[in-house]
Amino acid sequence: MAAIKVHGSPMSTATQRVLACLLEKGTDFQFVPINMAAGEHKSENYLSLNPFGQVPAFEDGDLKLFESRAITHYIAHEYSDKGTQLLIPGSNKDMAVLELWKEVEAHQFDSPSSKIAWEAFYKPFFGMVTDSAAVEENEGKLAKVLDVYEARLTQSKYLASDCFTLADLHHIPNIQCLLATPAKKLIDSRPHVCAWVKEITARPAWSKVLAMQKQ
Amino acid sequence: MAAIKVHGSPMSTATQRVLACLLEKGTDFQFVPINMAAGEHKSENYLSLNPFGQVPAFEDGDLKLFESRAITHYIAHEYSDKGTQLLIPGSNKDMAVLELWKEVEAHQFDSPSSKIAWEAFYKPFFGMVTDSAAVEENEGKLAKVLDVYEARLTQSKYLASDCFTLADLHHIPNIQCLLATPAKKLIDSRPHVCAWVKEITARPAWSKVLAMQKQ
Ligand SMILES: N[C@@H](CCC(=O)N[C@@H](CS)C(=O)NCC(=O)O)C(=O)O
Ligand SMILES: N[C@@H](CCC(=O)N[C@@H](CS)C(=O)NCC(=O)O)C(=O)O
Repeated sequence: MAAIKVHGSPMSTATQRVLACLLEKGTDFQFVPINMAAGEHKSENYLSLNPFGQVPAFEDGDLKLFESRAITHYIAHEYSDKGTQLLIPGSNKDMAVLELWKEVEAHQFDSPSSKIAWEAFYKPFFGMVTDSAAVEENEGKLAKVLDVYEARLTQSKYLASDCFTLADLHHIPNIQCLLATPAKKLIDSRPHVCAWVKEITARPAWSKVLAMQKQ
Repeated sequence: MAAIKVHGSPMSTATQRVLACLLEKGTDFQFVPINMAAGEHKSENYLSLNPFGQVPAFEDGDLKLFESRAITHYIAHEYSDKGTQLLIPGSNKDMAVLELWKEVEAHQFDSPSSKIAWEAFYKPFFGMVTDSAAVEENEGKLAKVLDVYEARLTQSKYLASDCFTLADLHHIPNIQCLLATPAKKLIDSRPHVCAWVKEITARPAWSKVLAMQKQ
């Protein structure tokens, strides 16, 4: 039995973030599907794993975690010698640049991209009606964020350095949703962002996450 | 001349987060006030420090950073042997618990508390009208977050451990605003949250941040 367990749904972007990280590392893990349609994430049992009643939740032996980015941080540090090096080992100053771009994802990119993903990707999927005013407002916000990324990506191949790191990985799930919405135009019109998106969504670990949605 | 510079406004919660961290560490720094009313944070000069045009921005010698929580992460690691120990040195598992509660602040607490602070603290201060529906909606969300905190704080004195860490520190600026709004009732009605709020807002470093607002 694998020591690592991920509880979640392959349709959830936050769950996908953790799966992508584990698959980059090539560590064994057990995936425990949570039936969100049946409200399993609000059951007493699940709330003992994540008191906020959200997916994913994570176990590594005795350690129980939730919050996707806290989980990827732990995996990248604990399994630093396995698979893809997702950190920038070296000085605190190098790591600070990685933390900076992780924070940019969390505090600048995540909100507008999640809102567009919800309105223009998940809602149609669930047969609900898209709020186009909300999409437009968030496309405006996302465009400003991607302008900063376009400038940044002229300086380094990936956001935090010339290597792929957690800062890039954290973006993939929302980016994948955006590519299936009209907001794709915001990516296509920025050449460096477009090349970066191609690179990060083409990673073999990410293809494996997408394949899990089809099982 | 101090190697560390913080560019920002003592009225800004994100700037306060960085100031509180530096004052806990007792490291020398120079504070460079940014006149936000005059739009100085959108000037070309300032945008070279933070392309998102937000305060704070930070310099330590050659290193330039923005995003308040990336800055505190750097300070806590780079100056780990000075002043208050804001991390949980030891195993990756111990640090993972700290990262978890930092992520909870960023992804569960920050949004509802910032929205209430904006509507019920900053808007009246600037002579603008509070949107009470937005306050009510976010008080509902914040109440659920504080329920989780109340349960957690029966297990440890602070969020990540029995010691004060970055996870607690990151909350202080928004908490201080909430205390001046009707949302204070959400704190007062939860005994462990109330005791924790008393502890973290009573820290000498935080008093010094508040004093900077009066200069
Ligand atoms: N900040 C959390 C967000 C988790 C989250 O929002 N999960 C969604 C699915 S992607 C969920 O469980 N939604 C159900 C709910 O909030 O009730 C993380 O990164 O893990
Ligand atoms: N996630 C950023 C948020 C910074 C932020 O929102 N700063 C506000 C003041 S507290 C600001 O500069 N607002 C002006 C603007 O966004 O134009 C951080 O933590 O540093």
